[in-house]
Amino acid sequence: MPNQSPGLDGVFRALADPTRRAVLARLATGPAPVSELAAPFSMALPSFVQHLDVLERCGLVRSRKSGRVRTYRLAPAPLAAAERWVAAQRALWERRLDQLDRYLEATKEETP
Amino acid sequence: MPNQSPGLDGVFRALADPTRRAVLARLATGPAPVSELAAPFSMALPSFVQHLDVLERCGLVRSRKSGRVRTYRLAPAPLAAAERWVAAQRALWERRLDQLDRYLEATKEETP
Repeated sequence: MPNQSPGLDGVFRALADPTRRAVLARLATGPAPVSELAAPFSMALPSFVQHLDVLERCGLVRSRKSGRVRTYRLAPAPLAAAERWVAAQRALWERRLDQLDRYLEATKEETP
Repeated sequence: MPNQSPGLDGVFRALADPTRRAVLARLATGPAPVSELAAPFSMALPSFVQHLDVLERCGLVRSRKSGRVRTYRLAPAPLAAAERWVAAQRALWERRLDQLDRYLEATKEETP
Protein backbone atom coordinates (compact mmCIF):
# COMPACT_ATOMS: atom_id res chain seq x y z
CA MET A 1 0.00 0.00 0.00
CA PRO A 2 1.72 3.20 -1.13
CA ASN A 3 0.49 5.28 1.85
CA GLN A 4 2.29 2.82 4.16
CA SER A 5 5.64 3.17 2.39
CA PRO A 6 8.28 4.02 5.02
CA GLY A 7 10.45 5.27 2.14
CA LEU A 8 7.96 8.03 1.41
CA ASP A 9 7.97 9.08 5.08
CA GLY A 10 11.69 9.81 4.93
CA VAL A 11 11.56 11.44 1.51
CA PHE A 12 8.75 13.85 2.41
CA ARG A 13 10.41 14.63 5.75
CA ALA A 14 13.65 15.40 3.91
CA LEU A 15 11.78 17.71 1.51
CA ALA A 16 10.26 19.68 4.41
CA ASP A 17 13.27 21.99 4.70
CA PRO A 18 14.28 24.90 2.43
CA THR A 19 18.02 24.18 2.66
CA ARG A 20 17.54 20.56 1.64
CA ARG A 21 15.19 21.54 -1.19
CA ALA A 22 17.76 24.07 -2.45
CA VAL A 23 20.51 21.40 -2.36
CA LEU A 24 18.33 19.01 -4.37
CA ALA A 25 17.52 21.76 -6.90
CA ARG A 26 21.27 22.41 -7.27
CA LEU A 27 22.08 18.69 -7.65
CA ALA A 28 19.34 18.29 -10.27
CA THR A 29 21.65 20.28 -12.55
CA GLY A 30 24.66 18.00 -11.86
CA PRO A 31 26.95 16.59 -9.13
CA ALA A 32 28.78 18.95 -6.77
CA PRO A 33 31.31 18.80 -3.93
CA VAL A 34 30.27 19.72 -0.36
CA SER A 35 32.10 23.07 -0.49
CA GLU A 36 30.14 24.20 -3.55
CA LEU A 37 26.83 22.96 -2.12
CA ALA A 38 27.46 24.75 1.19
CA ALA A 39 28.59 28.06 -0.35
CA PRO A 40 25.14 29.73 -0.75
CA PHE A 41 24.23 29.12 2.90
CA SER A 42 25.28 31.14 5.94
CA MET A 43 25.39 28.04 8.09
CA ALA A 44 28.15 26.25 10.03
CA LEU A 45 29.52 23.38 7.94
CA PRO A 46 28.59 20.66 10.50
CA SER A 47 24.95 21.83 10.41
CA PHE A 48 25.00 21.84 6.63
CA VAL A 49 26.51 18.35 6.54
CA GLN A 50 23.64 17.14 8.76
CA HIS A 51 21.23 18.24 6.01
CA LEU A 52 23.26 16.25 3.47
CA ASP A 53 23.12 13.23 5.79
CA VAL A 54 19.31 13.47 5.98
CA LEU A 55 19.16 13.55 2.18
CA GLU A 56 21.53 10.59 1.85
CA ARG A 57 19.79 8.44 4.49
CA CYS A 58 16.48 8.58 2.62
CA GLY A 59 18.20 7.87 -0.69
CA LEU A 60 17.61 11.27 -2.36
CA VAL A 61 21.36 11.82 -2.86
CA ARG A 62 24.47 9.65 -3.03
CA SER A 63 28.01 10.67 -2.23
CA ARG A 64 31.47 9.47 -3.12
CA LYS A 65 34.74 10.52 -1.52
CA SER A 66 37.78 11.05 -3.70
CA GLY A 67 40.83 12.11 -1.71
CA ARG A 68 39.59 14.84 0.64
CA VAL A 69 36.63 15.85 -1.51
CA ARG A 70 33.18 14.32 -1.07
CA THR A 71 30.96 14.80 -4.11
CA TYR A 72 27.18 14.49 -4.05
CA ARG A 73 24.77 13.61 -6.80
CA LEU A 74 21.00 13.36 -7.02
CA ALA A 75 19.42 9.88 -6.95
CA PRO A 76 16.15 10.53 -8.76
CA ALA A 77 14.13 7.37 -7.85
CA PRO A 78 12.85 8.56 -4.42
CA LEU A 79 11.86 11.93 -5.90
CA ALA A 80 9.98 10.10 -8.66
CA ALA A 81 8.17 7.99 -6.00
CA ALA A 82 7.10 11.16 -4.17
CA GLU A 83 5.89 12.70 -7.43
CA ARG A 84 3.90 9.56 -8.27
CA TRP A 85 2.16 9.62 -4.90
CA VAL A 86 1.16 13.28 -5.23
CA ALA A 87 0.09 12.83 -8.87
CA ALA A 88 -2.07 9.84 -7.89
CA GLN A 89 -3.99 11.99 -5.38
CA ARG A 90 -4.50 14.70 -8.01
CA ALA A 91 -5.83 12.10 -10.46
CA LEU A 92 -8.36 10.87 -7.86
CA TRP A 93 -9.33 14.46 -7.09
CA GLU A 94 -9.77 15.42 -10.74
CA ARG A 95 -11.84 12.32 -11.46
CA ARG A 96 -14.11 13.32 -8.58
CA LEU A 97 -14.46 16.88 -9.98
CA ASP A 98 -15.34 15.42 -13.40
CA GLN A 99 -18.02 13.26 -11.78
CA LEU A 100 -19.41 16.32 -9.96
CA ASP A 101 -19.44 18.25 -13.25
CA ARG A 102 -21.36 15.50 -15.00
CA TYR A 103 -23.81 15.28 -12.10
CA LEU A 104 -24.41 19.05 -12.17
CA GLU A 105 -24.87 19.00 -15.97
CA ALA A 106 -27.38 16.17 -15.67
CA THR A 107 -29.26 18.02 -12.90
CA LYS A 108 -29.36 21.20 -15.03
CA GLU A 109 -30.83 19.31 -17.99
CA GLU A 110 -33.57 17.86 -15.78
CA THR A 111 -34.56 21.32 -14.45
CA PRO A 112 -37.08 22.99 -16.79
CA MET B 1 12.27 31.52 -4.39
CA PRO B 2 10.24 28.29 -4.28
CA ASN B 3 12.79 26.44 -2.14
CA GLN B 4 12.27 29.09 0.57
CA SER B 5 8.51 28.68 0.66
CA PRO B 6 7.45 28.07 4.29
CA GLY B 7 4.18 26.67 2.88
CA LEU B 8 6.07 23.80 1.26
CA ASP B 9 7.83 23.03 4.57
CA GLY B 10 4.50 22.37 6.27
CA VAL B 11 3.01 20.49 3.32
CA PHE B 12 5.96 18.09 2.95
CA ARG B 13 6.10 17.59 6.74
CA ALA B 14 2.39 16.74 6.71
CA LEU B 15 2.93 14.23 3.89
CA ALA B 16 5.70 12.46 5.86
CA ASP B 17 3.23 10.23 7.72
CA PRO B 18 1.32 7.18 6.43
CA THR B 19 -1.88 7.99 8.38
CA ARG B 20 -2.01 11.52 6.98
CA ARG B 21 -1.28 10.27 3.45
CA ALA B 22 -4.08 7.71 3.76
CA VAL B 23 -6.50 10.44 4.96
CA LEU B 24 -5.59 12.62 1.96
CA ALA B 25 -6.05 9.67 -0.42
CA ARG B 26 -9.50 9.07 1.10
CA LEU B 27 -10.46 12.77 0.88
CA ALA B 28 -9.32 12.92 -2.76
CA THR B 29 -12.41 10.81 -3.51
CA GLY B 30 -14.77 13.18 -1.63
CA PRO B 31 -15.49 14.85 1.75
CA ALA B 32 -15.92 12.70 4.87
CA PRO B 33 -16.78 13.13 8.56
CA VAL B 34 -14.15 12.44 11.25
CA SER B 35 -15.76 9.13 12.26
CA GLU B 36 -15.48 7.74 8.73
CA LEU B 37 -11.91 9.01 8.30
CA ALA B 38 -10.85 7.49 11.63
CA ALA B 39 -12.53 4.10 11.08
CA PRO B 40 -9.65 2.33 9.19
CA PHE B 41 -7.10 3.19 11.90
CA SER B 42 -6.55 1.43 15.22
CA MET B 43 -5.68 4.69 16.93
CA ALA B 44 -7.20 6.67 19.81
CA LEU B 45 -9.47 9.39 18.43
CA PRO B 46 -7.47 12.29 20.01
CA SER B 47 -4.29 11.04 18.30
CA PHE B 48 -6.14 10.76 15.02
CA VAL B 49 -7.58 14.27 15.38
CA GLN B 50 -4.02 15.58 15.86
CA HIS B 51 -3.20 14.23 12.40
CA LEU B 52 -6.24 16.05 10.99
CA ASP B 53 -5.05 19.24 12.75
CA VAL B 54 -1.62 18.93 11.08
CA LEU B 55 -3.31 18.57 7.70
CA GLU B 56 -5.60 21.54 8.32
CA ARG B 57 -2.85 23.85 9.64
CA CYS B 58 -0.82 23.49 6.44
CA GLY B 59 -3.93 23.99 4.31
CA LEU B 60 -4.15 20.49 2.82
CA VAL B 61 -7.68 19.96 4.20
CA ARG B 62 -10.53 22.17 5.38
CA SER B 63 -13.25 21.28 7.85
CA ARG B 64 -16.73 22.47 8.63
CA LYS B 65 -18.82 21.63 11.69
CA SER B 66 -22.51 20.99 11.26
CA GLY B 67 -24.22 20.13 14.53
CA ARG B 68 -21.96 17.58 16.20
CA VAL B 69 -20.37 16.34 12.99
CA ARG B 70 -17.16 17.82 11.61
CA THR B 71 -16.64 17.08 7.92
CA TYR B 72 -13.28 17.33 6.14
CA ARG B 73 -12.51 17.94 2.51
CA LEU B 74 -9.31 18.09 0.50
CA ALA B 75 -7.97 21.54 -0.43
CA PRO B 76 -5.92 20.72 -3.54
CA ALA B 77 -3.80 23.89 -3.93
CA PRO B 78 -1.00 22.94 -1.45
CA LEU B 79 -0.78 19.45 -2.98
CA ALA B 80 -0.47 21.05 -6.42
CA ALA B 81 2.34 23.30 -5.12
CA ALA B 82 4.22 20.25 -3.80
CA GLU B 83 3.75 18.45 -7.11
CA ARG B 84 5.03 21.49 -9.04
CA TRP B 85 8.17 21.64 -6.91
CA VAL B 86 8.96 17.95 -7.40
CA ALA B 87 8.16 18.11 -11.14
CA ALA B 88 10.47 21.12 -11.54
CA GLN B 89 13.39 19.12 -10.09
CA ARG B 90 12.62 16.23 -12.43
CA ALA B 91 12.57 18.60 -15.41
CA LEU B 92 16.02 19.97 -14.44
CA TRP B 93 17.31 16.43 -13.96
CA GLU B 94 15.96 15.20 -17.29
CA ARG B 95 17.39 18.20 -19.14
CA ARG B 96 20.77 17.36 -17.64
CA LEU B 97 20.49 13.72 -18.78
CA ASP B 98 19.59 14.92 -22.29
CA GLN B 99 22.67 17.15 -22.32
CA LEU B 100 24.83 14.21 -21.17
CA ASP B 101 23.31 12.04 -23.91
CA ARG B 102 24.11 14.64 -26.57
CA TYR B 103 27.63 15.03 -25.22
CA LEU B 104 28.21 11.24 -25.31
CA GLU B 105 26.77 11.02 -28.84
CA ALA B 106 29.06 13.83 -29.99
CA THR B 107 32.08 12.16 -28.36
CA LYS B 108 31.21 8.84 -30.04
CA GLU B 109 31.03 10.49 -33.44
CA GLU B 110 34.45 12.06 -32.95
CA THR B 111 36.02 8.71 -32.04
CA PRO B 112 37.12 6.81 -35.17
